[in-house]
Amino acid sequence: MGQLGLESSDYVEFDLRVRYAETDRMGVVYYANYLVWFEMGRSEYCRQRGFNYLELEELGYRLVVAEAYCKYRQPARYDDLITVRTSLDFLKRRLVDFSYLVLRKGTEEALVGGKTKHLCVDAEGVARTIPEPYFTYLSRGLPP
Amino acid sequence: MGQLGLESSDYVEFDLRVRYAETDRMGVVYYANYLVWFEMGRSEYCRQRGFNYLELEELGYRLVVAEAYCKYRQPARYDDLITVRTSLDFLKRRLVDFSYLVLRKGTEEALVGGKTKHLCVDAEGVARTIPEPYFTYLSRGLPP
Amino acid sequence: MGQLGLESSDYVEFDLRVRYAETDRMGVVYYANYLVWFEMGRSEYCRQRGFNYLELEELGYRLVVAEAYCKYRQPARYDDLITVRTSLDFLKRRLVDFSYLVLRKGTEEALVGGKTKHLCVDAEGVARTIPEPYFTYLSRGLPP
Amino acid sequence: MGQLGLESSDYVEFDLRVRYAETDRMGVVYYANYLVWFEMGRSEYCRQRGFNYLELEELGYRLVVAEAYCKYRQPARYDDLITVRTSLDFLKRRLVDFSYLVLRKGTEEALVGGKTKHLCVDAEGVARTIPEPYFTYLSRGLPP
Repeated sequence: MGQLGLESSDYVEFDLRVRYAETDRMGVVYYANYLVWFEMGRSEYCRQRGFNYLELEELGYRLVVAEAYCKYRQPARYDDLITVRTSLDFLKRRLVDFSYLVLRKGTEEALVGGKTKHLCVDAEGVARTIPEPYFTYLSRGLPP
Repeated sequence: MGQLGLESSDYVEFDLRVRYAETDRMGVVYYANYLVWFEMGRSEYCRQRGFNYLELEELGYRLVVAEAYCKYRQPARYDDLITVRTSLDFLKRRLVDFSYLVLRKGTEEALVGGKTKHLCVDAEGVARTIPEPYFTYLSRGLPP
Repeated sequence: MGQLGLESSDYVEFDLRVRYAETDRMGVVYYANYLVWFEMGRSEYCRQRGFNYLELEELGYRLVVAEAYCKYRQPARYDDLITVRTSLDFLKRRLVDFSYLVLRKGTEEALVGGKTKHLCVDAEGVARTIPEPYFTYLSRGLPP
Repeated sequence: MGQLGLESSDYVEFDLRVRYAETDRMGVVYYANYLVWFEMGRSEYCRQRGFNYLELEELGYRLVVAEAYCKYRQPARYDDLITVRTSLDFLKRRLVDFSYLVLRKGTEEALVGGKTKHLCVDAEGVARTIPEPYFTYLSRGLPP
């Protein structure tokens, strides 16, 4: 499994408060739920780069997840205030990779990190170039 | 809020084992998850009455939920073996109501009970008569 | 099943954006997820009345859900901005009831409404009077 | 990110049917839910090797997740019958790694694969040797 970290300083952040529903009997956030937060990070990333991910889907395109990786350092707990920091790692015609850091809000304490790899497909599931202007919007977040 | 109970003896059962993901920090099944089990009960009900709920959706129909009610008596916990007993309470051209009992498997100990009310709609969300042969399939579970 | 509505004008609101994870194959928010939003409403209700629900749990008390009811009018969809309006309906030594309205943010369009009934118990599950100062905090939200 | 695959032929399987709640608006199983299935695979792995994971937790031990990886090939859909095949990849005093394959039941068609790495900790979160007889039970699944 891979490395953890955001190489780019060019990230997008959003905050959330941990829901009771997101915890498990160990008293911490259930491990699959960080992937939900990553997805929220991607949505927010698109929004702050100039478009709504929903538009892309309404045009018949989807950024399907090909791989996901998650490294757990410290657990988040009910009612914690969390910052999810999302960065675009890689962008090519049909491919886009994101990195994530889940931080205790107001600190640089990384609780969880992760990466996802995506492929752009059309409604039939065929790989497609990410259409304009979305490719350009996404590329604004690329490390130089 | 309503009464709890299955008036009909003509029910359908399926078993499940409680998932870790379904628990919360209180150590019990999170209260919204019983509605997930109810939905599994409806799917199983249809299957045992002769059709697959998916077929109905593929024809463009949906049994949307109009109301849901849940009464919590005793909590289910991780790894518990559970029986969900589903009964059809009411059936009219466009309407169908189900009742549920969540039991500790092998006992008559009811942990949770519930009811849902559904409306048959088409792909545009317009109310429609439940098409044949599905109406007839469903009616097999009606109390006499 | 019951009526829908908030009789009290004394409510607490919070906003959320619908997550991709909260939708189902029908393209709308899965029906159980509204109960998750109700729980967030209760948390926010407590916070805005002067305490953190977590404190109550850390003292060994829990407001367990005895009943939940949900009425579905219109679906919420991915990326919608939603306001959850929470009201305290009833408060007695060991009992507290909440009502909820799920609104399209910025409108009075009620998508979903609901009610939950809760019982205060201690760590052993025995019914207990809601301890002070929490009872007083909660009572601030009571309709006159 | 890592490789996908089960090196060991010594695996444990269980079946599930995809729940409506597990799908998203794309009509497929939401990507985080495969991690829920992996956890069910681990539970089942323990059970078939001679113990209940719950016992380990009741003794104050936990196998916390340190890393998770998931590779998505083909989506699972509502009502699909799925087999989850779980294998123990690595076992050392305090560490245990599992691999998973999510198959269309009755076939060798791998929809999703994954790996998780776990650390044994006590109730205070301190790393501990996996206690006997659980270490021995787990080791029964090790490739020779």
